[in-house]
Amino acid sequence: MPLRVGVIGAGMIGQEHTRRLTTVVIGAEVVAVTDLAADRAGLLAAEAGARPHASGAEVVARPDVDAVLVTSWGPTHAEYVLAAVAAGKPVFCEKPLATDAADCLRILQAETAHGRRLVQVGFMRRYDDAYRRLKRLVDAGDIGAPLIVHCAHRNPTVPVSYTSEMAMLDTAIHEVDVLRWLLDEEIVSAQVLTPRPTRRRFDHLQDPQLMLFETSGGVRVDVEVFVNCQYGYDIRCEVVGETGVARLPDPARPAVRQDGREGVAVVTDWRERFGDAFDAEIQAWVDAASAGTATGPSAWDGYAATAVGDATVEALKTGETVPVDMEPRPSFYSGAQQ
Amino acid sequence: MPLRVGVIGAGMIGQEHTRRLTTVVIGAEVVAVTDLAADRAGLLAAEAGARPHASGAEVVARPDVDAVLVTSWGPTHAEYVLAAVAAGKPVFCEKPLATDAADCLRILQAETAHGRRLVQVGFMRRYDDAYRRLKRLVDAGDIGAPLIVHCAHRNPTVPVSYTSEMAMLDTAIHEVDVLRWLLDEEIVSAQVLTPRPTRRRFDHLQDPQLMLFETSGGVRVDVEVFVNCQYGYDIRCEVVGETGVARLPDPARPAVRQDGREGVAVVTDWRERFGDAFDAEIQAWVDAASAGTATGPSAWDGYAATAVGDATVEALKTGETVPVDMEPRPSFYSGAQQ
Amino acid sequence: MPLRVGVIGAGMIGQEHTRRLTTVVIGAEVVAVTDLAADRAGLLAAEAGARPHASGAEVVARPDVDAVLVTSWGPTHAEYVLAAVAAGKPVFCEKPLATDAADCLRILQAETAHGRRLVQVGFMRRYDDAYRRLKRLVDAGDIGAPLIVHCAHRNPTVPVSYTSEMAMLDTAIHEVDVLRWLLDEEIVSAQVLTPRPTRRRFDHLQDPQLMLFETSGGVRVDVEVFVNCQYGYDIRCEVVGETGVARLPDPARPAVRQDGREGVAVVTDWRERFGDAFDAEIQAWVDAASAGTATGPSAWDGYAATAVGDATVEALKTGETVPVDMEPRPSFYSGAQQ
Amino acid sequence: MPLRVGVIGAGMIGQEHTRRLTTVVIGAEVVAVTDLAADRAGLLAAEAGARPHASGAEVVARPDVDAVLVTSWGPTHAEYVLAAVAAGKPVFCEKPLATDAADCLRILQAETAHGRRLVQVGFMRRYDDAYRRLKRLVDAGDIGAPLIVHCAHRNPTVPVSYTSEMAMLDTAIHEVDVLRWLLDEEIVSAQVLTPRPTRRRFDHLQDPQLMLFETSGGVRVDVEVFVNCQYGYDIRCEVVGETGVARLPDPARPAVRQDGREGVAVVTDWRERFGDAFDAEIQAWVDAASAGTATGPSAWDGYAATAVGDATVEALKTGETVPVDMEPRPSFYSGAQQ
Repeated sequence: MPLRVGVIGAGMIGQEHTRRLTTVVIGAEVVAVTDLAADRAGLLAAEAGARPHASGAEVVARPDVDAVLVTSWGPTHAEYVLAAVAAGKPVFCEKPLATDAADCLRILQAETAHGRRLVQVGFMRRYDDAYRRLKRLVDAGDIGAPLIVHCAHRNPTVPVSYTSEMAMLDTAIHEVDVLRWLLDEEIVSAQVLTPRPTRRRFDHLQDPQLMLFETSGGVRVDVEVFVNCQYGYDIRCEVVGETGVARLPDPARPAVRQDGREGVAVVTDWRERFGDAFDAEIQAWVDAASAGTATGPSAWDGYAATAVGDATVEALKTGETVPVDMEPRPSFYSGAQQ
Repeated sequence: MPLRVGVIGAGMIGQEHTRRLTTVVIGAEVVAVTDLAADRAGLLAAEAGARPHASGAEVVARPDVDAVLVTSWGPTHAEYVLAAVAAGKPVFCEKPLATDAADCLRILQAETAHGRRLVQVGFMRRYDDAYRRLKRLVDAGDIGAPLIVHCAHRNPTVPVSYTSEMAMLDTAIHEVDVLRWLLDEEIVSAQVLTPRPTRRRFDHLQDPQLMLFETSGGVRVDVEVFVNCQYGYDIRCEVVGETGVARLPDPARPAVRQDGREGVAVVTDWRERFGDAFDAEIQAWVDAASAGTATGPSAWDGYAATAVGDATVEALKTGETVPVDMEPRPSFYSGAQQ
Repeated sequence: MPLRVGVIGAGMIGQEHTRRLTTVVIGAEVVAVTDLAADRAGLLAAEAGARPHASGAEVVARPDVDAVLVTSWGPTHAEYVLAAVAAGKPVFCEKPLATDAADCLRILQAETAHGRRLVQVGFMRRYDDAYRRLKRLVDAGDIGAPLIVHCAHRNPTVPVSYTSEMAMLDTAIHEVDVLRWLLDEEIVSAQVLTPRPTRRRFDHLQDPQLMLFETSGGVRVDVEVFVNCQYGYDIRCEVVGETGVARLPDPARPAVRQDGREGVAVVTDWRERFGDAFDAEIQAWVDAASAGTATGPSAWDGYAATAVGDATVEALKTGETVPVDMEPRPSFYSGAQQ
Repeated sequence: MPLRVGVIGAGMIGQEHTRRLTTVVIGAEVVAVTDLAADRAGLLAAEAGARPHASGAEVVARPDVDAVLVTSWGPTHAEYVLAAVAAGKPVFCEKPLATDAADCLRILQAETAHGRRLVQVGFMRRYDDAYRRLKRLVDAGDIGAPLIVHCAHRNPTVPVSYTSEMAMLDTAIHEVDVLRWLLDEEIVSAQVLTPRPTRRRFDHLQDPQLMLFETSGGVRVDVEVFVNCQYGYDIRCEVVGETGVARLPDPARPAVRQDGREGVAVVTDWRERFGDAFDAEIQAWVDAASAGTATGPSAWDGYAATAVGDATVEALKTGETVPVDMEPRPSFYSGAQQ
């Protein structure tokens, strides 16, 4: 019998995951949809063959909803995740787990009290084939112990609503999670350098930013976040180890020689870059939720990302190196990383 | 309601496709399995939750079998495909469609008489992302009209049972199909050059071979087939057009710098190289079969590959350039290529 | 004391080599220049601080000319080379050594009679860093014994005076020499396939051509010659050995990501591609000539290239596989290859 | 008539440049050699056909010495450069121009007083083909205005005598110069991050280091300096501009597929990486010195590198961001960069 999923939030990412649940992954169906905008909920419910609901609480409470997918506005995540955990239902929550660390801690406590993992956070990069191969190389010791990681996250452009803080909270949050996972270490401090901004951005925006992180083990990380780079959606990661260097590959595209150049297409859209990772992420969630639990990025990972995000935003504001303020990791979450 | 599939042939590829039908693709279940070896059929049936049968005829005849998957020994393909067509059931047939051209023609006639496509042949490369991107570039005119194609098909090693003819009939048959599809032209002649054989092969085997094809439009193709190349499973394709050159990409793998070298893993197994293509191929078949028809490589494509194969084997034996002996394409199959 | 060079032929390549002798290489000066066009000879002589002469014979005969550089029209090469050999003077001759094999044989006899190498033929690729690295890999056994070589020689365009035969005699002659050197084997037969010609060429021209060679050791070679490829000057060479494959690198150029593409400049001019090789070739000649002898591509290599060229032109005309008609290699030329 | 050069310092780099002056570049001869170790001076003088001298002062003073090459121990550079300038003789000085900024300023004053450039500093990267192509791209605006530059300088290993300060003073000094040249901006501050050190280094050494520079125009630069990276000598540079990204290419080397990998050799020695740049640098010096002046990296560039070096060493010691303390650029040196 398929996993019966209730979807909270029928915006773009909610629509994408609903499509995934109904036409891509095995073993799930969407039975309930809600959204602040009732018409949007109605439309998506109709498409998915589900019933629209007036509120997230209704969706979580419905007895034939086995598991909950939270794709609503960030500040509402904590409320719905807590509701699902209270109901003992597996829940997938798009990043961020919560917009402040205190809420994340409440979720950790609730889940710990429940005694079994119920929460998976939407850090899809852990399911990306390229990152997984990179991690396998690093874990196998092919390049020795990591010492430095060089990263870049580039988007072609962002809309006017994008703020300097979002470079961390919306964008680099994926870098933070994948670095923690790749290195299996916590990030302990953050600093943000502000290069001359590109003229191809809205005036209020500091873009690019050069974020500097240090891990608990002393690894140094530089992350260029450049969200108006114009040319493409480009994710770079190079791990420098004691005996070698390993680099995330670009997506495989045909090379064309014409007009005096050899050219290879660069991906321009995050859906193209991480589409397969999203599919794998949702399949993994469905498989675990069908067994009444969760896998992959945990509530702890969601908390850590929020804590690093807070420090980084502070670092951007002050120009200082800011230590990350984090509780010790509960034993419940030891080895919980996928 | 899922498509109920009957599987004829429970060898390696039959097992792989059964796994695909049950755990990867959407919309199908396996309900019947048969094999010359009853125990092998029994095992696979048990795994898939299906019923074992004593014969292919039984499988085809079973009323609740909606569609048939033929993965038996090559010489038996025609019989089962013809049975499925006679029953009006969609059928997926692993390559070759039939081991001789006359049998292929019988299938063409039967399908034409039926009046709607029922047959899909297992040329999975048409579903490979890299080939599809290459075809898109060529079709878009990015490199102008194709004039020459350079190909290579390399395997690490082959077992002792592999013969010189199999370089064409088992191996290059995929090249022949994908070239016909890529160029949308028929192959009209074949020649085979025999380099000094590698010493790393069984004595009876001519390996490598350099096959030369000409298309109806005058495109020249060279295909290196080297099935004991030792180093990896490597598929290369470069299309030379009037204004540019396009090249099939290699799978994306992390680059590692260590010990004085930058190295990238080369795939060593065809399952790793074409796994996603097989998944997409079977999904496409399930989707079409659920609608009572077929898509992708047609019986005509199966016939053409067999006809080119016959000419190439003759060319290998004689050292001559051998014209391909093919009937004109029935209008039923116009534009049938995916 | 610098080597005093007499230049016969003040056309483009004569001018280039004169510039090399006067401003790039160490140990030479140009003292004499001649050309059929007296004014052209006068101009180049003035630039080089040399004396113009009325004939090649005069240049060779001049007592203070230590060595001769022949860059005149191909059909006149043999005459000047023979004159230089008769005078016991080292001579550098641009390819071809002679336009017919009989003249080449006369030069071989003269040089053999002289008892010491005096002739170097202008096959500059042997001095190209990329080819030298490739040869070193092959010679070191890194890929095992070579079995097949895939080559391409592409020019953006050619002038109207270019004929189908010149694809061999002017263009592929460099491929032939570098293949003989790379493999250390003679070419024993030639075949030419004629793809549908590109529409971007003069009507009289068969372009591209696909040349197929076999070596004395059974290695098979395919060489695509495409002199109106539009996009660049592109030289490709891939050697397939018993245990691996090695590929000539492209010149190192910065990669640029912009407008949805990662692009690398492709060389568009043979001078850019082989400029350093020409420099090294002329330096090697000056060094050897200063010691009264010659190095690098020998008269034997010039003869072999002409013999293969004759067979290939015949193959183009007849469509047949044509054996190369060559005398046995005199012991004088054993091991003479650089 | 060739430029008559006096060499001060017959160590490794002095020997290399002497070989260059005598066997590679056009228009020079070495007539005088001195070294603290008289026997070393004698040996090199004998090889070069020059006369050994007891002191640098003697070499500079010798009337038939037209130009001076300073390759002695760093702390002695200033003395010899000042002597050459006082004598009005062109002088090539290996980096650093002087080990403290005050000495550099004395040289600037002396040269300015002389009224014509006499000093060239040995920053050979400006003559490297790859860097020159990169600069051409940047200057042409292909990637828009630069905002960030990512660099890495990796050596396989260093000897026990290498100290943490030398990561800046001996190694990153080349990065500093080439960045100033590439961007045509001064560096105004430095910060040094210290990752967990590799265990494959001597205990006293902080390795790797992550240096962070800011330029006068607000460009941010990160430079990884890792001198025990084990795997090769690897120089990386990526310029991120407003509309694109350009990357320094690696040296062209054949790609080999074997044993499940495609591998390309990584250079392991700085002489292999920058050999051609050294040749071009010395040729440019000889050409300019023959005309009584200097070209390329100027005394101002030498001063700037030393000033940035001082700030960086301070930054390493303090962990702080340290402003670079530099005099304003005298008009004498405007536009003096090559």
